[in-house]
Amino acid sequence: MASISLADYPPELSKEEELYLISNLKDWSIAHGLAVRPAPAFVQPSQDPSGVLATTAPVTLFPSLFPASCFEEGLAIQRAYNELYSAIARDEAWLQSIVEELLGIDDFVTKLWQTHLMVKEEGYAQDLSLGLFRSDYMVHQDPSEANPAPSLKQVEFNTIASSFGGLSSQVSALHRYLLTIDAYPSSTSSIVKAEALQQSRSASSLAKGLAAAHKAYVSSQANRPLCVLFIVQDPERNVFDQRHLEYALLEENGVRSFRLPFGETLSHTKLDADRTLLYTPPNSPSTSYEVTTIYFRAGYSPDDYPKDEDWTARLHLEKSRAIKCPSILTHLAGCKKVQQVLATPHSPHLKRFLPDEKVAARVLATFAPIYPLDSSEAGREARRLAADPASASRYVLKPQREGGGNNIYRKAIPPFLEKLPETHWPAYILMEMIEPPPLTNAILRNGELQKGGVICELGVYGVCLWRDGSGAEQNKGEILESWEAGYLLRTKGDQSEEGGVAAGFGAVDSCCLVDG
Amino acid sequence: MASISLADYPPELSKEEELYLISNLKDWSIAHGLAVRPAPAFVQPSQDPSGVLATTAPVTLFPSLFPASCFEEGLAIQRAYNELYSAIARDEAWLQSIVEELLGIDDFVTKLWQTHLMVKEEGYAQDLSLGLFRSDYMVHQDPSEANPAPSLKQVEFNTIASSFGGLSSQVSALHRYLLTIDAYPSSTSSIVKAEALQQSRSASSLAKGLAAAHKAYVSSQANRPLCVLFIVQDPERNVFDQRHLEYALLEENGVRSFRLPFGETLSHTKLDADRTLLYTPPNSPSTSYEVTTIYFRAGYSPDDYPKDEDWTARLHLEKSRAIKCPSILTHLAGCKKVQQVLATPHSPHLKRFLPDEKVAARVLATFAPIYPLDSSEAGREARRLAADPASASRYVLKPQREGGGNNIYRKAIPPFLEKLPETHWPAYILMEMIEPPPLTNAILRNGELQKGGVICELGVYGVCLWRDGSGAEQNKGEILESWEAGYLLRTKGDQSEEGGVAAGFGAVDSCCLVDG
Repeated sequence: MASISLADYPPELSKEEELYLISNLKDWSIAHGLAVRPAPAFVQPSQDPSGVLATTAPVTLFPSLFPASCFEEGLAIQRAYNELYSAIARDEAWLQSIVEELLGIDDFVTKLWQTHLMVKEEGYAQDLSLGLFRSDYMVHQDPSEANPAPSLKQVEFNTIASSFGGLSSQVSALHRYLLTIDAYPSSTSSIVKAEALQQSRSASSLAKGLAAAHKAYVSSQANRPLCVLFIVQDPERNVFDQRHLEYALLEENGVRSFRLPFGETLSHTKLDADRTLLYTPPNSPSTSYEVTTIYFRAGYSPDDYPKDEDWTARLHLEKSRAIKCPSILTHLAGCKKVQQVLATPHSPHLKRFLPDEKVAARVLATFAPIYPLDSSEAGREARRLAADPASASRYVLKPQREGGGNNIYRKAIPPFLEKLPETHWPAYILMEMIEPPPLTNAILRNGELQKGGVICELGVYGVCLWRDGSGAEQNKGEILESWEAGYLLRTKGDQSEEGGVAAGFGAVDSCCLVDG
Repeated sequence: MASISLADYPPELSKEEELYLISNLKDWSIAHGLAVRPAPAFVQPSQDPSGVLATTAPVTLFPSLFPASCFEEGLAIQRAYNELYSAIARDEAWLQSIVEELLGIDDFVTKLWQTHLMVKEEGYAQDLSLGLFRSDYMVHQDPSEANPAPSLKQVEFNTIASSFGGLSSQVSALHRYLLTIDAYPSSTSSIVKAEALQQSRSASSLAKGLAAAHKAYVSSQANRPLCVLFIVQDPERNVFDQRHLEYALLEENGVRSFRLPFGETLSHTKLDADRTLLYTPPNSPSTSYEVTTIYFRAGYSPDDYPKDEDWTARLHLEKSRAIKCPSILTHLAGCKKVQQVLATPHSPHLKRFLPDEKVAARVLATFAPIYPLDSSEAGREARRLAADPASASRYVLKPQREGGGNNIYRKAIPPFLEKLPETHWPAYILMEMIEPPPLTNAILRNGELQKGGVICELGVYGVCLWRDGSGAEQNKGEILESWEAGYLLRTKGDQSEEGGVAAGFGAVDSCCLVDG
């Protein structure tokens, strides 16, 4: 059969081809835990009160095409990003200057900072920090050029609760399986081939990161059982993603872990006199585990703090001797404002944290320009760009607050700003739109097949374990472990006008590398 | 905490203990494919038309206690059972005598035999046969003795579609996981311990059996792609059980397989001039695979043959050069009547197939006495036993027909026989009841927890690949491969009066060995 061109990928499937692909995908996914708990709209909780049903996680039928050069660059610079963000997290004075700009704009960031100050007053009891990071990118091709070379542009950098590392390993294995059983038509054989499919080892590699922190932790008392504590949301539909890390932690590293809903923190943990964090499993009230590492898969969003008590819980955890993944300063280092000041044209900040010019230049090349809408020189340039419909069409206006949504796109920017009092303008930043190449794929979600144009977002995981410097030299410190930890490809339909992949699920995907 | 005694196992769980155990069980099972598609009563097909939902397979919360001596004996004699049943399958004349006794009693057996005769007329095109067997037992303790020693008594021997080998490996791993994470209260630590939990390697071992047949098959034409063909029911709720074998076949043995609903056999397969079986996947009409091995996971029950065409399909498959798992004679060797004549007291048949007296004695020791209700000497003894309420209370009356149900138990036998014309008596056999020790457990099924008395059935898998002798020496033959292939423990509530575990699902379980 004749080969199809890249532009025709993925091919239209005959009814029989689609049936074969989907029936094999459905069974493989459940047999290998590429699954989620069903959404309430699909299965009402009253129908399954004990929550035993599961369904295939939203996945793409085909691996999406991804330029090899961009994929390789994303993986190659992850250690530089680990270094960058661990350096930011160690630079309290610099972070303070960032947070101060958000006073009155972002209550959540302010509250996190206050929590930091309260812990600092007592003194931090742990100088090790763990980061399980994920740097998210899109491929950018300048639409004004004739044959634009693809480049990688950062969408955001996650320092807390970087998700999908568990499912990502499974979806790349799924696509490889589908290739092996000839579920992809032979017309695609010059594109979808074993050497083009990138296997993600994220589940194993992230678990190894948690194990590294666990082992670096110095216990305060001999013979007490040790554990890693997963702080989770409850209920959690994406539980299998997290469970794969737990299983890899146990099976490949011999490390015990427990899941603790964030809202139950104060009921089941306590601080010893030396601020050792002790966890008492409710099923075994006579056993206390010393927590070596707190892994936050909750607490990253204001929604996780409905009660004052939730902030008490966060403070309680931060005070402890356990290694935090992430520490509160690392959490703050991941706020949008940090990304913005690093990516502001002519910003002096990047070289502060990445003194090696070559390394800094490679990282800088992945930034899409971001402007503040304030009275600085860059701010004045931004106001000019945003007011003119011609230039505004290359930008997106985003609130500085954490959390997705409420973005204003392209030509809608000038009229929006006209109506907004100028005093409110600094609450927004202006970001150059990333222009991804046109791609199509099919997504299976809740049993429904959706086909059409898609946008892909590459996430590269990084593990970094470091020790803060002491006293006034906190920012010096030392990196003990740093590695790139696999990747995620997340894909969603491009129907929405959201330029970056917005908050929400999309589908898990894997990379099929192509030249470029 | 003080240890509990065996009689108190498993312990009552506190609410928190139960919550911890079940939440970990629910997640692990889906993450590892210990799953089934939900029953229509749980999820209506209209709610999930594309069938993406799955649920935890019915499982026991605890591994059930099982006497070590019985477990070890069951595994140890499996190779003798392989030898026995492959010898029976090779002895056409003997099988014919059995089938003739069922004329007019069992249409299904008769139809299978006729199919054999039709193939024989053309001549069999393949002299290799594969058996993936499962010998099912219960533990028997004579209630009339004071301290009865447990012994293993056979319930039935399966020569076709022996199921649960895929899930059995997973459930033994689940119970080990639950032990590792302390989901079993510490009061059980002297009972549920790593060395007592028996891991079943059935999925891997059965797949290796299919691979052995695949490799022993001599292709009729070079360069044609080869495959194993799973003949399946459609729909199949227990699909993951089968899928685990397919995945192990592919990943551990590099052997491709396809699933073909039995009812679609004639649409997608054809016989070459030399009776090579060619399978054309509907998704790839230009590719034909030569089928090395037909693995029947359908076709074992009259329900699978609603149309005449289904018998045509069976004949078509049997005629082919593919290795059958099982061949039609092997299928017939598994009929109840064979078990009955072997287990009739003073039967001469066992030594015909197992000339080694010591081996035959060990196999014989696992038979529960079975009597025909005919005019033979054993039949006359049976009539006496069945007519007297005192002796009848140790027996069950079973129809000779294949398929479960319609058994008459104990004291209900004499009045039942009184009403039945004597000419109909030979349609039944009388079997000594197996008296299992009292056990309790808890079963999670469709999200509901059921606790109480249970009955456990041990299944021991066996793989046997043999070559028939030729011509009149068919019964000689040669065993090429034979091994014990792991085990299954199946457990159900003892509420029903069904003495043996009846047809139907029960729950998958694993063995926790105890002395005895």
